[in-house]
Amino acid sequence: MARAYNFSAGPAILPEEVLREVQSELLDYKGTGMSVMEMSHRSKAYQEIFDETKQNLIDLLNIPDTYEVLFIQGGASLQFAMVPMNLMKNTVADYIVTGQFSKKAANEAKKYGQVNIVASSEEDKFSYIPDVSNLEISENADYVYICENNTIYGTKFKKLPDTKGKPLVADVSSCFLSEPVDVTKYGIMYGGVQKNIGPAGMSIVIIRKDLINDFVLGGTPTMLKYTTYANNDSMYNTPPTFNIYVCGKVFKWLKNLGGLKAIQKMNEDKAKVLYDFLDNSKLFKTNVRKEDRSLMNVTFVTGDEEMDKKFVSEAAKAGFENLKGHRSVGGMRASIYNAMPKAGVEALVSFMKKFEEENL
Amino acid sequence: MARAYNFSAGPAILPEEVLREVQSELLDYKGTGMSVMEMSHRSKAYQEIFDETKQNLIDLLNIPDTYEVLFIQGGASLQFAMVPMNLMKNTVADYIVTGQFSKKAANEAKKYGQVNIVASSEEDKFSYIPDVSNLEISENADYVYICENNTIYGTKFKKLPDTKGKPLVADVSSCFLSEPVDVTKYGIMYGGVQKNIGPAGMSIVIIRKDLINDFVLGGTPTMLKYTTYANNDSMYNTPPTFNIYVCGKVFKWLKNLGGLKAIQKMNEDKAKVLYDFLDNSKLFKTNVRKEDRSLMNVTFVTGDEEMDKKFVSEAAKAGFENLKGHRSVGGMRASIYNAMPKAGVEALVSFMKKFEEENL
Repeated sequence: MARAYNFSAGPAILPEEVLREVQSELLDYKGTGMSVMEMSHRSKAYQEIFDETKQNLIDLLNIPDTYEVLFIQGGASLQFAMVPMNLMKNTVADYIVTGQFSKKAANEAKKYGQVNIVASSEEDKFSYIPDVSNLEISENADYVYICENNTIYGTKFKKLPDTKGKPLVADVSSCFLSEPVDVTKYGIMYGGVQKNIGPAGMSIVIIRKDLINDFVLGGTPTMLKYTTYANNDSMYNTPPTFNIYVCGKVFKWLKNLGGLKAIQKMNEDKAKVLYDFLDNSKLFKTNVRKEDRSLMNVTFVTGDEEMDKKFVSEAAKAGFENLKGHRSVGGMRASIYNAMPKAGVEALVSFMKKFEEENL
Repeated sequence: MARAYNFSAGPAILPEEVLREVQSELLDYKGTGMSVMEMSHRSKAYQEIFDETKQNLIDLLNIPDTYEVLFIQGGASLQFAMVPMNLMKNTVADYIVTGQFSKKAANEAKKYGQVNIVASSEEDKFSYIPDVSNLEISENADYVYICENNTIYGTKFKKLPDTKGKPLVADVSSCFLSEPVDVTKYGIMYGGVQKNIGPAGMSIVIIRKDLINDFVLGGTPTMLKYTTYANNDSMYNTPPTFNIYVCGKVFKWLKNLGGLKAIQKMNEDKAKVLYDFLDNSKLFKTNVRKEDRSLMNVTFVTGDEEMDKKFVSEAAKAGFENLKGHRSVGGMRASIYNAMPKAGVEALVSFMKKFEEENL
């Protein structure tokens, strides 16, 4: 059958080209007579895959050698604890809360020290990104934390906060590699790979080297110390070898497309198709203000819960999958990550137009 | 090319049948138009895969409903911390040290409480399993810990220790599903999947329900609490969806073979071919005494390091991969997990015979 139009928020659509390559190599990776899943992580063949994957990511993001790239099992939820355990020297951190995930991160950090919420949009159901140009950053804050793209709400920081010199820690799970970024603005940039990069089961942590040191809070498990990964090139123990390999193919795919500038252009074009329609629709609308709109996750509603349900159900029948909004907010969400072709968004908009005509 | 004879200790050989199925479904799982890698973990199609996987494991191991099955990202090394963090109510635990991994586990547990080494074979380079029939178990021990099969040394507990009523915690990574076991003898049985079950990136933890409770040591991250997994059927956050799917295929493969009794018979037959040869060889020998020999990891040496090197190198040229022993012990190791066909072991023995003739 044809490929579905998969608007899932994560795990999510992957490039068809990548999947075809993975398929063709599945029983025999380049004449080794083995699947990558079967390879010792200490073998030469696997080391080459690993090194190439890491280098391609470094190239794509232009990561300077003052940073380390770590591949760590577990998703963002594990980083919610690893960040404070490794960084909270003064046991103080400032959090900007713009959605469920930054809120969860802040709550997890409270186990380890004092957490100051220096900005929040919770009072308006996380529908916007607060002004972060001049926050009251705590004098002894070990870091300032954000979730850069809010998957559930469809919002994104278009300008990073002024952290007044404190390291910025950003969860970029749902906007990872969607556009060029200046890595040097971050202390830590991390994300679960299952949204825009590869198969669920891993986070990539890009961390400024001076933040990796012998300090950790007492009781921090060996596998939760960044040093364990940095000192062993992410191979202290067996890494998620196959997941890394698929991520590597996605990195190559992005490079071949022209890198992050090229994908940004494509993402902007793609998102414009959908937002333009929403801004002119008589049935559908988005509640996110223009300046905060995510290029990756587009949330919208009809304003009528029954109509929303009807739309999601009819869309699914027509092959548009996973358009239901997150269970905590309802409505609809179209996640249009890097791998979603523009044709997929255009097909969705055509379907929405037809639905609008039939239901207005 | 033909499939390699892959004797890797892990990640390791997987059944060819399983890989072929994964390959055929890679772009379109059963008409969904998606790869399993692309499926939302909250979708109906994925939930069915997950439920079937879990049920097949329950069937294979005959897991009673007084136990929970948890799928947890991270390998055994993460369990080294999770076990004490979740179980050390009295902050005392007894460890039996029979190799590098139980030693590491004991060292990790020392961060959290008092660790008593109640038996060890370290003084003889972990070449045997100590007598564990009548140990001095600490009166207030929260649990007694073993690594049941020692991947590096090729030894296995043929009889479980008498824990005097304390819960037994066993790392079964390298003997998982290699033979029938009585789950009720364990408080926790856990293993990384990357040796005998599936692609690296996950552990399966089978835990007696009364050991899952609100107790955890202070500062335990949410993602390191067993309750987080037990209360959310291992879906508190995105699980390693594809890894679980491949494990599920291996469970089905085992069921179709006739279950754990059938695979035990096959494993015994296979290991006998190699051990019989070693016991009669004039060049090769194993240092592991008969009563402690692993069916999964067979370690051997020639007694001459140069000869060992030559053997490993010539074997690799002949298509026998990953026969080098662990870097900490040298010599050779053939890991002959469930998926290694008897023909592979027979081919290895033929090659060893030839090598012996040429080099004696």
